[in-house]
Amino acid sequence: MKIKILFFLLFLVAAVMPCISGTHPNMLLTRAGVREIQKWSDRSPAFRKSLADLKRMADLAMQNGVVVPVPKDEGGGYTHEKNKNNYAEMNAAAILYQITGDKAYAGFVRDMLMEYAGLYPTLGLHPSLRSSTRGKLFWQTLNESVWLVHAACAYDCVYDFISASERQYMEENLFYPMAGFITNGNPENYAVFNKMHNHGTWANAAVGMIGYVMGDRNLVDMALYGSLKDGSSGFFKQLDQLFSPDGYFTEGPYYHRYALWPFMTFAQVIQNQQPELDVFGYREGILFKAVDAMIQQSYNGELFLLNDALPKSLKSKDIVSSVDIAVKNNPENKSWLEVARYQDDFLVSDAGISTARALLREKPGPVVLRSAFLSDGPAGDAGGIAILRGGSRTGSACLTFKATSHGLSHGHYDKLSLSFYDNGNRVITDYGSSRFLNIESKSGGNYTPENYTWAMQSIAHNTVSINEKCQFDGNIKVSSRYHSDINYHDFSDPSLQVVSGTEKNAFPGVTLQRTVAMIRLPGLGDPVVLDLFRVRSGPEALIDLPFYFNGDVVFTSFVLAKNRDLLKPLGKENGYQHLWLEASGRPAGTNAVFTWINGSRFYNLTTLSDSGTQVMMVRTGANDPEFNLRSEQGIILRQSGVAQHTFVSVIEPHGLYDLTNEVTAGIRSQVSRLQLLEDTELNTVVRIALADGSSCLFIAVNADFDADKRRTVTVEGDTIQFKGNFQLVKETI
Amino acid sequence: MKIKILFFLLFLVAAVMPCISGTHPNMLLTRAGVREIQKWSDRSPAFRKSLADLKRMADLAMQNGVVVPVPKDEGGGYTHEKNKNNYAEMNAAAILYQITGDKAYAGFVRDMLMEYAGLYPTLGLHPSLRSSTRGKLFWQTLNESVWLVHAACAYDCVYDFISASERQYMEENLFYPMAGFITNGNPENYAVFNKMHNHGTWANAAVGMIGYVMGDRNLVDMALYGSLKDGSSGFFKQLDQLFSPDGYFTEGPYYHRYALWPFMTFAQVIQNQQPELDVFGYREGILFKAVDAMIQQSYNGELFLLNDALPKSLKSKDIVSSVDIAVKNNPENKSWLEVARYQDDFLVSDAGISTARALLREKPGPVVLRSAFLSDGPAGDAGGIAILRGGSRTGSACLTFKATSHGLSHGHYDKLSLSFYDNGNRVITDYGSSRFLNIESKSGGNYTPENYTWAMQSIAHNTVSINEKCQFDGNIKVSSRYHSDINYHDFSDPSLQVVSGTEKNAFPGVTLQRTVAMIRLPGLGDPVVLDLFRVRSGPEALIDLPFYFNGDVVFTSFVLAKNRDLLKPLGKENGYQHLWLEASGRPAGTNAVFTWINGSRFYNLTTLSDSGTQVMMVRTGANDPEFNLRSEQGIILRQSGVAQHTFVSVIEPHGLYDLTNEVTAGIRSQVSRLQLLEDTELNTVVRIALADGSSCLFIAVNADFDADKRRTVTVEGDTIQFKGNFQLVKETI
Repeated sequence: MKIKILFFLLFLVAAVMPCISGTHPNMLLTRAGVREIQKWSDRSPAFRKSLADLKRMADLAMQNGVVVPVPKDEGGGYTHEKNKNNYAEMNAAAILYQITGDKAYAGFVRDMLMEYAGLYPTLGLHPSLRSSTRGKLFWQTLNESVWLVHAACAYDCVYDFISASERQYMEENLFYPMAGFITNGNPENYAVFNKMHNHGTWANAAVGMIGYVMGDRNLVDMALYGSLKDGSSGFFKQLDQLFSPDGYFTEGPYYHRYALWPFMTFAQVIQNQQPELDVFGYREGILFKAVDAMIQQSYNGELFLLNDALPKSLKSKDIVSSVDIAVKNNPENKSWLEVARYQDDFLVSDAGISTARALLREKPGPVVLRSAFLSDGPAGDAGGIAILRGGSRTGSACLTFKATSHGLSHGHYDKLSLSFYDNGNRVITDYGSSRFLNIESKSGGNYTPENYTWAMQSIAHNTVSINEKCQFDGNIKVSSRYHSDINYHDFSDPSLQVVSGTEKNAFPGVTLQRTVAMIRLPGLGDPVVLDLFRVRSGPEALIDLPFYFNGDVVFTSFVLAKNRDLLKPLGKENGYQHLWLEASGRPAGTNAVFTWINGSRFYNLTTLSDSGTQVMMVRTGANDPEFNLRSEQGIILRQSGVAQHTFVSVIEPHGLYDLTNEVTAGIRSQVSRLQLLEDTELNTVVRIALADGSSCLFIAVNADFDADKRRTVTVEGDTIQFKGNFQLVKETI
Repeated sequence: MKIKILFFLLFLVAAVMPCISGTHPNMLLTRAGVREIQKWSDRSPAFRKSLADLKRMADLAMQNGVVVPVPKDEGGGYTHEKNKNNYAEMNAAAILYQITGDKAYAGFVRDMLMEYAGLYPTLGLHPSLRSSTRGKLFWQTLNESVWLVHAACAYDCVYDFISASERQYMEENLFYPMAGFITNGNPENYAVFNKMHNHGTWANAAVGMIGYVMGDRNLVDMALYGSLKDGSSGFFKQLDQLFSPDGYFTEGPYYHRYALWPFMTFAQVIQNQQPELDVFGYREGILFKAVDAMIQQSYNGELFLLNDALPKSLKSKDIVSSVDIAVKNNPENKSWLEVARYQDDFLVSDAGISTARALLREKPGPVVLRSAFLSDGPAGDAGGIAILRGGSRTGSACLTFKATSHGLSHGHYDKLSLSFYDNGNRVITDYGSSRFLNIESKSGGNYTPENYTWAMQSIAHNTVSINEKCQFDGNIKVSSRYHSDINYHDFSDPSLQVVSGTEKNAFPGVTLQRTVAMIRLPGLGDPVVLDLFRVRSGPEALIDLPFYFNGDVVFTSFVLAKNRDLLKPLGKENGYQHLWLEASGRPAGTNAVFTWINGSRFYNLTTLSDSGTQVMMVRTGANDPEFNLRSEQGIILRQSGVAQHTFVSVIEPHGLYDLTNEVTAGIRSQVSRLQLLEDTELNTVVRIALADGSSCLFIAVNADFDADKRRTVTVEGDTIQFKGNFQLVKETI
């Protein structure tokens, strides 16, 4: 009986949820937020600038008048870009109306929405056939959802300004039909609306937000709990599925920030409209973890170039929006405030003014970036990405180690790959994607063919390829079945940070195991990276390990013969066809040293070599008829005809090359010798000797990982005992 | 009789010049300056930082103690770098002694000078044979002069601290022998000391400055008026000879700022010691003109890459020093103050504190950069360099046009070459020099062989090469005999800036004439560059005009067939051997369009084409066994077997490619068509048609240049009358 009453009360609460109460605006901007902006914006120069930018956009749009073209073009084309700009402009005008009270802004929004309401019922599917989920206003429904998210906010701001009959006309002709089309316009749209995918997030946000504005409980519930309203899909299910427990988004950082935008936007609206759902507390604050994971996946203000990715600044508008909303709903996190300070731009909204005000109060704050491990997979058991940092200041060294699942359609075949940043620069990097955004002459602004033939291939990454093949033979269905495993990671000691991963499925019958350590050695100004890559194959194989580096070659310890007057591609397929073979050499002795300059520093790759080692220098650009590839260079360590091999390398930043003041210092590597003392299924033991005569042993455990387990290793007759998965032993000579 | 008395009085004034009065310090730092620094440095955070940097250097040096190695190495090697650091460190300590009064600093300077005084008499010539003017402390006497300039300042600061006997020891064993060695240690040094060359400037400054400190009139007079003290050489003669009347330094901006350092340093000392010489007023303020000319030869805070040049920031210490001294001695020039604000760093000296104080008083000031013409040659009649700017803000378009004399040993064979900067980026650029500064493994830190085989060659520049040969056949003796001529330049109308140059000697029997105009057309957001390059040859020839561009190719209007799986060098010699031929095509029709992205903008090269036009895409790196060349790309316009040809091209910046906010706009060129309507010895007439249907005619006069002359040209039956050397006619259709 009591329970029934409770349910009844709950139902009452839900039925009178604020959106139905008729309060407007109450989305990203609320009445309280408007008052805050009116009162405080003059105090924050940065916020004032963001507001001025918005005003400039709105004013210019109003000068040009309302133009709503009939959809025709794809991304980059006129009608696409115009309909895209329209949503931004009407949203800007709507916000300006609220802040200034100037009815001209509201009139502009009304007129534009009336135009769209007149147009929309006349539209069939978009003429472009390129997308499997064709939209009406746009060539893909995704863009339609993004349009509706913005239009819902704009509508909310002018809701009380517009007459009831106009509202009825808009809702009947535009908003309900569009929400209907997105949720269930056809089987493809229905599938996307209920799919665990960033396109689904946009669809949910669009439908939920217009539902809140119109006070339509049905639309809101479908957005939150899926078409069946049973929680089997919808926004909350996406919060369960799309992020790992550490907040990692499986497609990688570039799509992470894109997906996070509707997640955070819709969450803020839910928070305003249904605070009782505590959306930001959901799944132990998964949205906050996702914001943090995105920020951690950056260097020098740019997201890591992993999977399909173009350079993307933390200053991009979508990240500004997510960070402002995060700060507003969790003002305790001073790291995010520091990111907001760096962005120097705000979402003109409750969240934005709140963040701007916090920055006026707070002095420059604590460390933003740290070493971090981000597990992959909804349960956090599908490998992950490790980020090792040499420090928290801008310019500190940073190593990324990727041992995740495939990452859906935007994933690359890059298991156990690493990237290295230092001194504010990309030193050893991933290529990212091959794409020219919205440039029609470049594959219609979409990914170029070379994204598949090069950028996704294993040889394009700083990881192992075997027999000139791609991991998983380049088959996404197979790759998506598996993930790498993280054996352990330990960043507790800033002077010795270690992560180890294993990949057993990328090449049938081959086990790849990579252990990377960022080690701060006495006498060296900077940490070095020790890289142990064990390959255990069945039959004899050709094993390639590339390091794509930026900069100019200054020294090699061996004859690296450069091809003077003839260049040919390194191979025929799997990405090898895109590499010009520029130089090749066979190091004599047991170590090969390769030095280059990047920016104002020198970098060394010292690697173990033997009689079977070949070092090749390559450059992208072969078999690239459309000039789609950037010209980038790498060296490839190659071992031929071996059933197993362990690559042992040290990456060492050193010295100073200051062209401004003409100071060159510390040119020489301080690593004088690498030795592989033991390499069994149990342990790998490496000695790093320095030029000052000191040396150390690094012992990596290769199996039976256990941070508490006691181990005994005998090295050159000495017995070494330690606990855990690795050990650094400083030697005195 | 009266004249005799006047001479006698002048002699008296000279004899009691302040240096002999025993006032110390009185070089870059004076007693008054010390008081200013003590009083004001805390008020300027930037000056405080410069002072703190100096203190850090001095303190660290004192921690490490005095180490004076016996000279052995060349640039980049230990003894070279250590003896170089020593002068900076003793100078830092000496300044700190004056400012803080802490005698430990003075003691350190004394100890170091005593060490050098002990070492110097034991030294023969430096073991390295690489320089024709071997030094004792360094492999070339130049470095010895630089050492002495700093040591003189240091000695001056601690002069009163050191005992008379110590001073005597230092002067007898170090300063007099070194000054003697620099002035006349051997015939080579004697020649350099009296040579019109930046090495001579350093030698004069060194000898003059130590002369002032020691109160030695003989040394000072030799420095000012040459070994013969008759004004036939020495500092004042250099002021006459090394700069053009516009302040242009013939070797180009990179060596300009290096030469300016001792010029300004020594001038400040002369001003302090012998103000009656009015050194800054000499030759109508030639030193100020030189400072201004240096600043004008910069873009986005970096000097132009012309002749032998590495990237060089306006923030480099030598430029900081020159700008501070310029500001102190001409505080009216607010442009220089703005450069000092940008530098955010000061010379810890009278000039530095004075500049820092001025910045505290002055609000951010007027325009620093402008369109400018800088004549070359002591009399200003040896051609010159033109700098055309689209505006004064950072990021405004900037075109350089070089039609100078050769530029001594650092000159390139680049007559009539252009470079183009926009949006803060190098868009079409010179390669600069092939050099890795002070890196021993790279040609001992000096210019690499490719500096001669590539960087200096004509094909490495954005100008014409004929029959795959270098201008002047790459013979510096021949090239140094001639200079290009500037026909006219007119920057009076910001919307139509034009310069024209002629070169008649680079290829025997061939006349090269280039007219470039920066034109702001209605309807275009940015100015375009119209480039008319007329080649009049006797016999039929192969004519190449390259444009080396930075960025990614996005569009070509013609089939530019890229070599998929085989690259070969373009040629065998004269720089052609260093170019990989990446792609080639023959445009159909009368216009060829080539579009690329650089940073966040698109750039178009639209060029007139005919059935004989070949367009090739090339990349540096062939025949480069030591990896000395950077990988850079260019397109080459080639006409074969023609006795004459006029290249007509438009460079057009447009649109926006904003990866941060994913906005792509204005991809398409607005230049729809170029037509060459007339091309005679008298006039060239070109029509530029725009996509909006508008068009304009540009008429360039090719002979009989006269800004006041009235001209009549008939174009398509219409008679056009105008005055001067060029005309822009807007057409209505």
